[in-house]
Order: sequence, then structure tokens, then C-alpha cells
Amino acid sequence: MLVIAYDGTNYCGWQVEPNGVSIQSTLQDALEDLLGERVNVTGASRTDSGVHALGQVAVFDTEMSMPDWKFAYAINQRLPDDIVVQSSKEVSADFHPRYTHKIEKVYEYRIMNSRMPQPCGRMYSFFVPQKLDVDLMRKAARLLVGEHDFRSFSSGKTKVTETVRTIYSFDIITEGDMITLRIRGNGFLYKMVRVIAGTLVKVGKGQKTVEDVENALKFPVWNSAGPTAPARGLTLISIKYG
Amino acid sequence: MLVIAYDGTNYCGWQVEPNGVSIQSTLQDALEDLLGERVNVTGASRTDSGVHALGQVAVFDTEMSMPDWKFAYAINQRLPDDIVVQSSKEVSADFHPRYTHKIEKVYEYRIMNSRMPQPCGRMYSFFVPQKLDVDLMRKAARLLVGEHDFRSFSSGKTKVTETVRTIYSFDIITEGDMITLRIRGNGFLYKMVRVIAGTLVKVGKGQKTVEDVENALKFPVWNSAGPTAPARGLTLISIKYG
Repeated sequence: MLVIAYDGTNYCGWQVEPNGVSIQSTLQDALEDLLGERVNVTGASRTDSGVHALGQVAVFDTEMSMPDWKFAYAINQRLPDDIVVQSSKEVSADFHPRYTHKIEKVYEYRIMNSRMPQPCGRMYSFFVPQKLDVDLMRKAARLLVGEHDFRSFSSGKTKVTETVRTIYSFDIITEGDMITLRIRGNGFLYKMVRVIAGTLVKVGKGQKTVEDVENALKFPVWNSAGPTAPARGLTLISIKYG
Repeated sequence: MLVIAYDGTNYCGWQVEPNGVSIQSTLQDALEDLLGERVNVTGASRTDSGVHALGQVAVFDTEMSMPDWKFAYAINQRLPDDIVVQSSKEVSADFHPRYTHKIEKVYEYRIMNSRMPQPCGRMYSFFVPQKLDVDLMRKAARLLVGEHDFRSFSSGKTKVTETVRTIYSFDIITEGDMITLRIRGNGFLYKMVRVIAGTLVKVGKGQKTVEDVENALKFPVWNSAGPTAPARGLTLISIKYG
């Protein structure tokens, strides 16, 4: 099991795709070079193009044996600067990073709410020049905490039928011009965090009301909330099992 | 007078150079497109390749008249994403951003002091895996505050003869794994902040002592402190006049 941090800017996302270079394939290439065999890497979250990670989790099977700490260093020598394995450990062969009963994921969505765009770090936040009402955004965020049908907050492109998820906590932290949405939950639908972020930005601008968010929860219709905020603002912070 | 923020990653530095694209020339191209005439842009700090800015200051002469706020928006439409004019104002024709009596510059140097490199934001900090002793670094930093001959903390490549500068304050701020050196002074020699940062990292590692720093100040010999820390960690935060 690997814990992986990456800058998603230059990738087509986690998953192998016909066009573009994915995080998954880049990892598989590096592992092939290290292990001398082609392995399949299974990730916990299929992050989209441009989405970043501090603590993505992925597993693969190998016969090779190497001390955990040594493995991370060996694989990092074979990876580009924008993908770094933070740690590795052996797990039982039946552990699956997605189909696991108890799971807690943390995502952060960062909004740069300044008058002018800030060039440094522009690939790690969504620039919004209009002053946002953070108090209103917090009110809307509180409604989302708990077990809900989040169908309205997903594009519906995936074929999942089970759209109930639990958000354990949702904090909005401000620091200078940066507004960070920090969401902790047991799972997220396709594009859910970005749709939540896009919805809350609308609330902060006064273009959607707190009641609109309440209704989107009450009446679950695919993609009825939104819009989807840009990928660059999103980071998968951590995944916990157990 | 323009206040400019930029991500220096993809530039050869502020100044026009035979090879590579500079911030200065990119600004001059955008201004030519806007004003219909070629102007010369004079910057307050000639930042090196890879060094960033939140508040670089630069001036140019033009006959064209446009409201200050309008000017910033008009020029930003002609600039790439990694250079953004934050504000503009008319100043008297004899104002020079470098040869001005009262001046205060603030620089920040950021060190990512984590066990593994962090891919996101890697172009805005210097990665140091070995745990640094920040208390020792603060002791060394305190010695540098005040009026000193900083000759030891510059490469000597420039031909300046006056090497006395005043550091008004030097704070070291830690936040998670990030260590930020914040230096405020009336001016800095060529590469001075990066040499100070490189020296302090050595102190933090225990490879130089606080006494070494004291001696470098007492016996000013070009480039005797150091080494020079990488450009990517450095940001010109602000410049004040008056």
C-alpha cells in the first residue's frame, strides 16, 4: 500500500486513459522499472485531471520483498518531481482501497478570493475576484453535514445507484485572501466536492441562497446543484481505514 | 508605477537577457500592444531566474492617459497567467524605483522541512529533508538585524562598492512543515537573501555555528558565507517608499 502525493496539473487524472498521461500509468511504469514486472495499481480515489493529492492511497501485488522505508525511496528515484510516494507498507492480499467498510476521506477545496489573481500557486486554487460572504457559505455548509442523498451534487456521469453519503464535518477556514473548504466524509460521488464548492461560491456571491442548497438535498436530481468548480482548487488530503 | 506579482518559474529573471524570456520584456511587449509605443520598464529589484514576486515595483514613461484601475485590467488582458499587475498609479516623472532615499523591501524565503518532498507548491519552496533546529536559526537571524557590511553574504558578481545594508527585522515563522524566513531591510546585495537562507539552513543542520555567522559579519569577504539557497524558495513580497 502506497500513500502518494501529487501535483495533478500535468496529468489527465488518476486513471489510465487513451489520451494523456495518468498518475496511475506513471506509477505503473516506475514500479515496472523497480520490480522488473508489470503490476496493476488500484487507487482509492479516481481523481480528475488537474486535481491534486497529499494522501492518495493505492495498492498493488508483488512477490518482491523490500523494507517499507526503502521502498518509498527506491520508487521516488524513478518518479517525476510531481509525484512522490510518501510512505509504503505491506497489507494483506484481500485489502481493497475502495471496497472497504470503514473509510474516511478528507478533501480540501481552496478559493483565492482576492481582487486580482495571484500568479504563485495559481494551479492550486480557484480564483474568485468577487468578495464572498463566508458566513452564508458556512450556513450552507452546515446543512450538508450528516447522511444525505447527494445526487444533486454529482454530474450523474457514473452509473452508481447508491447516492447516499455521510459528511462527518465541513469546515471553512479563512487565512488572508484564501478560503479553504475542508470536507471529511465516508465517500464522495463523482465530482461531488467540486459541485459543492461551485454551489457554495454561488451562495457566497449571493447568486444562490441557503434555501437552494436545502432544496437540492431534499429533492435529489442529478446535477441540479452546481456549477462544478475548477479541478485546480481540489486536493485529496487523506484517506483513513479501520 | 506598476505593482506586479509573478511566478518566476518560467522566466530567466526580471531583466532582459540575450537567451530566455524575462519578466521585463514580457511586460514591455504587453505595454507596446496596449500603448502602441515601445517603452522601457525599470524595475525596483532585478530578481533572478526562478525568483517570485508578490509586489515588484516598476515604472515607465508614456503620454497615454488612462484611469489607474482601468490600466491594470487592460494590461493584464495582454499578459500571461504567471504575471499579474496588481495595481497602477501615476507618479512624478523624476521618481526612480531603485535610486530613492527611503526604501523598505520585504523578502520571504520558504523552506519545506518535511521527510519527503511535497509535489504541490514545489516551485515555491526549498525542500530540506533533514530536521532543522529553528531555535539556532533564529539566534543566527538575530545577529543579522541592524546595519552591517553584508559583503560575506553576496557572490560579488556585481560591482557595487557600498556593501553596508540595514536589516530592520528578520522573523522566522513555522507553520506545519513550512519554515518561512521574513526579512525586511533598506536594500539587499546580489543574491544576499538566498545566501542568508543557505547559511541559516546550514546552521539549522548543525553544519555551521552561530559563531560562523557572527564571523562572516565581522570579517566581510565576498561570498565567504553561504551556500546560495535555490531561487524557487524566494519571493519579493513588497517595496515601500517614502
